[in-house]
Amino acid sequence: MSNKMNSPLSGIIPPLVTPLLDNDVLDIEGLEKLIEHLIDGRVHALFVLGTTGEAQSLSYKLRVEMIKNTCRIVNGRLPVLVCISDTSIIESVNLARIAADNGADAVVSAPPYYFASGQPELAEFYEDLVPQLPLPLFLYNMPTHTKVNFAPATIRRIAEDFRVIGFKDSSANTVYFQSVMYAMKDRPDFAMFVGPEEITGEAVLLGAHGGINGGANMFPKLYVSLYNAARERNMEELLRLQKIVMQISSTIYTVGQHGSSYLKGLKTVLSLLGICNDFVASPFHRFEKPERDKVRKALENLDLNLVLK
Amino acid sequence: MSNKMNSPLSGIIPPLVTPLLDNDVLDIEGLEKLIEHLIDGRVHALFVLGTTGEAQSLSYKLRVEMIKNTCRIVNGRLPVLVCISDTSIIESVNLARIAADNGADAVVSAPPYYFASGQPELAEFYEDLVPQLPLPLFLYNMPTHTKVNFAPATIRRIAEDFRVIGFKDSSANTVYFQSVMYAMKDRPDFAMFVGPEEITGEAVLLGAHGGINGGANMFPKLYVSLYNAARERNMEELLRLQKIVMQISSTIYTVGQHGSSYLKGLKTVLSLLGICNDFVASPFHRFEKPERDKVRKALENLDLNLVLK
Amino acid sequence: MSNKMNSPLSGIIPPLVTPLLDNDVLDIEGLEKLIEHLIDGRVHALFVLGTTGEAQSLSYKLRVEMIKNTCRIVNGRLPVLVCISDTSIIESVNLARIAADNGADAVVSAPPYYFASGQPELAEFYEDLVPQLPLPLFLYNMPTHTKVNFAPATIRRIAEDFRVIGFKDSSANTVYFQSVMYAMKDRPDFAMFVGPEEITGEAVLLGAHGGINGGANMFPKLYVSLYNAARERNMEELLRLQKIVMQISSTIYTVGQHGSSYLKGLKTVLSLLGICNDFVASPFHRFEKPERDKVRKALENLDLNLVLK
Amino acid sequence: MSNKMNSPLSGIIPPLVTPLLDNDVLDIEGLEKLIEHLIDGRVHALFVLGTTGEAQSLSYKLRVEMIKNTCRIVNGRLPVLVCISDTSIIESVNLARIAADNGADAVVSAPPYYFASGQPELAEFYEDLVPQLPLPLFLYNMPTHTKVNFAPATIRRIAEDFRVIGFKDSSANTVYFQSVMYAMKDRPDFAMFVGPEEITGEAVLLGAHGGINGGANMFPKLYVSLYNAARERNMEELLRLQKIVMQISSTIYTVGQHGSSYLKGLKTVLSLLGICNDFVASPFHRFEKPERDKVRKALENLDLNLVLK
Repeated sequence: MSNKMNSPLSGIIPPLVTPLLDNDVLDIEGLEKLIEHLIDGRVHALFVLGTTGEAQSLSYKLRVEMIKNTCRIVNGRLPVLVCISDTSIIESVNLARIAADNGADAVVSAPPYYFASGQPELAEFYEDLVPQLPLPLFLYNMPTHTKVNFAPATIRRIAEDFRVIGFKDSSANTVYFQSVMYAMKDRPDFAMFVGPEEITGEAVLLGAHGGINGGANMFPKLYVSLYNAARERNMEELLRLQKIVMQISSTIYTVGQHGSSYLKGLKTVLSLLGICNDFVASPFHRFEKPERDKVRKALENLDLNLVLK
Repeated sequence: MSNKMNSPLSGIIPPLVTPLLDNDVLDIEGLEKLIEHLIDGRVHALFVLGTTGEAQSLSYKLRVEMIKNTCRIVNGRLPVLVCISDTSIIESVNLARIAADNGADAVVSAPPYYFASGQPELAEFYEDLVPQLPLPLFLYNMPTHTKVNFAPATIRRIAEDFRVIGFKDSSANTVYFQSVMYAMKDRPDFAMFVGPEEITGEAVLLGAHGGINGGANMFPKLYVSLYNAARERNMEELLRLQKIVMQISSTIYTVGQHGSSYLKGLKTVLSLLGICNDFVASPFHRFEKPERDKVRKALENLDLNLVLK
Repeated sequence: MSNKMNSPLSGIIPPLVTPLLDNDVLDIEGLEKLIEHLIDGRVHALFVLGTTGEAQSLSYKLRVEMIKNTCRIVNGRLPVLVCISDTSIIESVNLARIAADNGADAVVSAPPYYFASGQPELAEFYEDLVPQLPLPLFLYNMPTHTKVNFAPATIRRIAEDFRVIGFKDSSANTVYFQSVMYAMKDRPDFAMFVGPEEITGEAVLLGAHGGINGGANMFPKLYVSLYNAARERNMEELLRLQKIVMQISSTIYTVGQHGSSYLKGLKTVLSLLGICNDFVASPFHRFEKPERDKVRKALENLDLNLVLK
Repeated sequence: MSNKMNSPLSGIIPPLVTPLLDNDVLDIEGLEKLIEHLIDGRVHALFVLGTTGEAQSLSYKLRVEMIKNTCRIVNGRLPVLVCISDTSIIESVNLARIAADNGADAVVSAPPYYFASGQPELAEFYEDLVPQLPLPLFLYNMPTHTKVNFAPATIRRIAEDFRVIGFKDSSANTVYFQSVMYAMKDRPDFAMFVGPEEITGEAVLLGAHGGINGGANMFPKLYVSLYNAARERNMEELLRLQKIVMQISSTIYTVGQHGSSYLKGLKTVLSLLGICNDFVASPFHRFEKPERDKVRKALENLDLNLVLK
C-alpha cells in the first residue's frame, strides 16, 4: 500500500473517460492532455477503468494499456485508483496485479455483474478476493449495472478486513448512502464517496469524503470548487456552483435517447474542448452531427467564467 | 384556497398514521392524542391519507372519517393536506370535495397506481384532474408504489397551472430531486418537499422547503429541530440530529422482513408511547410480541433527552 | 355457490371491456351488444371488472352499475365472474356482496396493488378475505400491476380453503405457470387459466382449463375455436388459428407507444365493429385519428372469414 | 460454416456445465465423462460457455481450454456451439476465432451485459459484430442477466444478415417467444430455441426447433424423449415426461435461497451421478452438506426408470 493511502482519500476523483481512436486503439495523446488538464484542475486523485471509463467495453489488452499509460503519465503526481470490476475473480486479480506492478495506489471493485448475487454470496466473494489483492480496495456500489446493492451490514462485514478502505456509491439513493454512513460511523478511516456529481455537495456536507464525478473530466475546477465549498460549509458558494452542476446535468447529459447519453455527451464535450477524441466503444457510437450540435450549444450556454477563472 | 397557502408551505409536515381499532374502525381517541402531540411538537402542517396513512388499505368510508375528524380536531390550528391518490379520477375528485367541505387547505396526488402511465398520459391525467379540484394540489412522486416517475419536464408542464403549488418526492433519489429543483428554478413559489426523513437535512440545505417525514409522528420535535438546523445552516446541530434520525431509521424501521417493516415499527412505537393503537390494516398485521420487544428495545436505546427537552 | 361452479370452469372467458360514454357513464347499449356478441360467440363464461375492464379506473358507483347490468343482461345464460381486486379488503368484500346479490357466480381477486406484500402477508390477506366472501374465489396473478407473484407454495396454502376454486395467471411466464400446475397437480378440481391469448393454445395443450383472453371481446369464435383445437389436440387447426391470434397481437395491440396500447386498440376495434364506444377511462384516452386509422388497417388485413364463418 | 449447419439445428442442445476442480482449473476427466454421457443420451448438439456453463465467472484462459477440450473430445460427433457473450466486442470476436480454429460449428451471443443498450444500439452492435465472425451466429435473449430484451423487430433487422441463423430465448415469457416466432414466420431456416426446459414441450408443439435445457446435462434421454414426443405430437407421452421435468425443476433447482440454486443443484446431481466435480466458480460456492443431502433426496425421489431405460 502506498503512503498516499495512509489517511482516507478525500476530494474530487475524476473517473477518467478512456480516450479512444477505435474500439481497440487508445488515444494516447488525448489521454496525456486529459491527465494534464485534470492535474491542472487540482483534482485529488484519478480513477481509471470505471463505468465512465467504459472498462467493460474494452479488451483486456486495452485495459492494461490504459493502466500502464495512466501510471506513466501521472508519474506519482496523484494517487491512481484502478477499477478491477469483472465477472471473473481470476481476471479481477490479474488486473489488480497489473495495477500494482505499474504503481497504482488502490483498486476498486463492483460486484460481479452477470449473475446477481445474494448478500452472503457477495460477502463471500470479497472475502475470497481481498486476500489475493496486492493493493487496498474500494467497494463500488452500482446497482443498475450489477443488479445488487451492498446491504450496509454486508459492507460492515467486508470492511472488517482493513485492506478494504472505502466505498463509492453510484446508486443516487441518498437514503441508502446515509444508511451506509451510519453503519460505518465507527470507522472514520473508511472513505465514503458518491458517484453522481449532482449530489456531491450534499453528501460532503453530511460527512462524505468526496465525489467520483464524471463531469470533472470536463471541468475539474468546478467540481473541486464545489467540494471545497462543501468542506468549508460555504453554502452561498455551494448553491451557486450547484446550479452550474445541474445545468450541465440537465443539458449535456440528456441529448440522446438512451442510457448512454451521459457518456456520449461527456466525450463530445471533451472533443469540443480539444482534449481527446469522442470515439465511444461498442455497443455505443459517438453522437452524430445533430446531437453534437446540441451538445455544443449546451456547452456555449454554460457561463464557465464563473468557475474556470 | 385558504390564506394559509398564500406563500409556499415549508417545514416538517408529518404524514399521519391512521390510528385504527380494526380494519374499518378509526381509533378516534388515538387520533386526537396524535394530533395534539404533533401540534405540541410545532410541526408546520399535517398530511393525512398518504402512504404512511395506509389510505389505500382503508375503505372510502374510513378515509372520509379520517378527513372529517382530522379537520375537526385541528380546527384551523395548522394547514391540513389531504392525499387523494386513487386509481379512479372520479374518486380522487370526490375525496378532494370532501376535503374542501371539511376545511382542508390543499390536496396531494400520486399518479394512478394500477396501470403504469407514460409521461404524456401522466401530464394529461393532471390536466384533466386539476380543473376539477376545489383546492390547490401538491404532486406526489412515489415510483416504487405507482410504477412511474414524474419526469422533470412533466412537472413543469403540469405546474403551468398555478393551482399546482408543490411537489413531494419519496423516490429517495436525490439526483432526481435535484433535477426537479433545477427544472423548477424559476418558480420560487413552488414548494419542494422530500419524503424520506433520512435526507430532509440535505434537501433543505440545498433549497428544499421541507420534509413530509413519517418519523415526525413519533418525535415531531426531532424533525422540526433538524429542519430548523438546516434552515439556519447550523451544521454541527444538523449532524448531531442526523445521527439520531439514522439510528431510528436503522433500528425501528428494520425489525421485520418485508417492506411493511417501516409502517409496523412506526405504529408499534406510537403504541409504546401511549399515543394510539398499533393495529395495521390488511394486507398487513401489527407486529407480534418478539418484534414488538425488539422495537421497544430500539426505542429504549434512543437518547431522546437530546431532542425532546 | 351456484350450481354452475360444481365442476371446474373451463374454456374461453372474455375479460369484458367496460363500454363507456364518459369517465363515469356506462355505455349500456354497448354493453348489451357486447354481451350478445359474446354469447353468440359461444364463450364459456364472462369476467367483468378485470384489468381489461379498467376496473381500477372506474368509480365504485360505475363498478356496481357494471355488475348489475351485466348480471341483468346475461340473465343466467352464462356464469359471471366479478373481479373484486382492490387495495382495501373492506371494499373487496363490499364488491363481492354486490356481485352475489346480483347473481354472479364467482369472484376473482388480484393482490392489493399499492403496497407490495411479502408471501406470508399475501397468504394471510387471503386467509382473512376468503371467509368473508359469499362466492367462490379465483386468484389472479398480475405481477406487473400488483408488484408481487403468488409463489406456488402460497397458492397451495391459500387453496387449502376449498372456496378458492381456481387461478388466472397473467404473468406471461409459462415456466411459472407450469410450476403452479405442478404444485396443484393433486387438485384436478382447481381451475387453471392463463390471461394472455398468445399462450392459451399451449397452456391448454399442457393441461390448463382455458384462457381469460381480451381478444375474445372482439372475436369470440376465434378464441373458442383455438381452445377447442387445443382440447381436441388438433395441432394443424391450432397452428392455423395461432397465426391469426399472433397477427392480432402484433398489429392491433401495438399501435400506440405506451402500455395502454392493448386496451386502446381493443376498444377501437370494438367501436369499428359497431359493438360499443371506444372511450377509454382516465388516465388514458381513446386513440386519435392517425392511430385509429392504423387499427382499422390492421383489422382489414385480418382474414376473419377463416374463423368467423 | 460447417455442413452441419446447412439446415436449421433442432432438438435438445445441452448447455454444458463447466466441470471445475477450482476457480481456474478445468475438471478434464469430468468433461470427458459429461460429453460421453450426453452423446450416449442422443442429444442433438452441444453448447458450451453459456449461463449454465458459468462462462462469465471463468478466466479467458479457462474459457479457451473449455473450447479446445470440448472440440477435441467431441471430435466431430456432434455440432458444437460456443457462447461468445462478452461486454467487449473485441473479446467476443477473439472467442469466436478460437472457436472456429478448434472446429466449432456456430457461436452464440447475448447482448453486452454491463451497459443496458437501447434497441437501435443493440441492432448496431450486431451489425458491427456479425461481419467479424468466422462462424454463423445464434442470438441469445437473457433479459434478467443482460437488462435488455431483443424486440422482435430488432431480431428481424439483425437476421437480415443470413449469417445469423437462430435464436435462443431464456426469458421464460412465451408471449414474447410467440411474438418472435410470428415476426420470423417467413424464415423457416431461422432456428428457434427456448432455454427453460419447463417449456420446451409447449414451444416445440407450437413450432420451435428445440430446447437448450440445463437439465439435459443430468438426464439427456429425458429431454430428448420430451422433444421427440412434442415433435411427434404424442401428447400422452409428453404430459407424462413433463411431470418428471417439473418434479426436477420444483425440487433439485430450489434447494438454496438465491438465484444460484439452479446451478448449484445441477452440479450437485452431476457429482452424485459420478459424472463430474460439483465445484462452482466464484462468486458462488458448491452446496454444503445439508443442501447436498436435500438434493440427494430429491434425486432419489425421481423415478428415472421411467425415462432412462
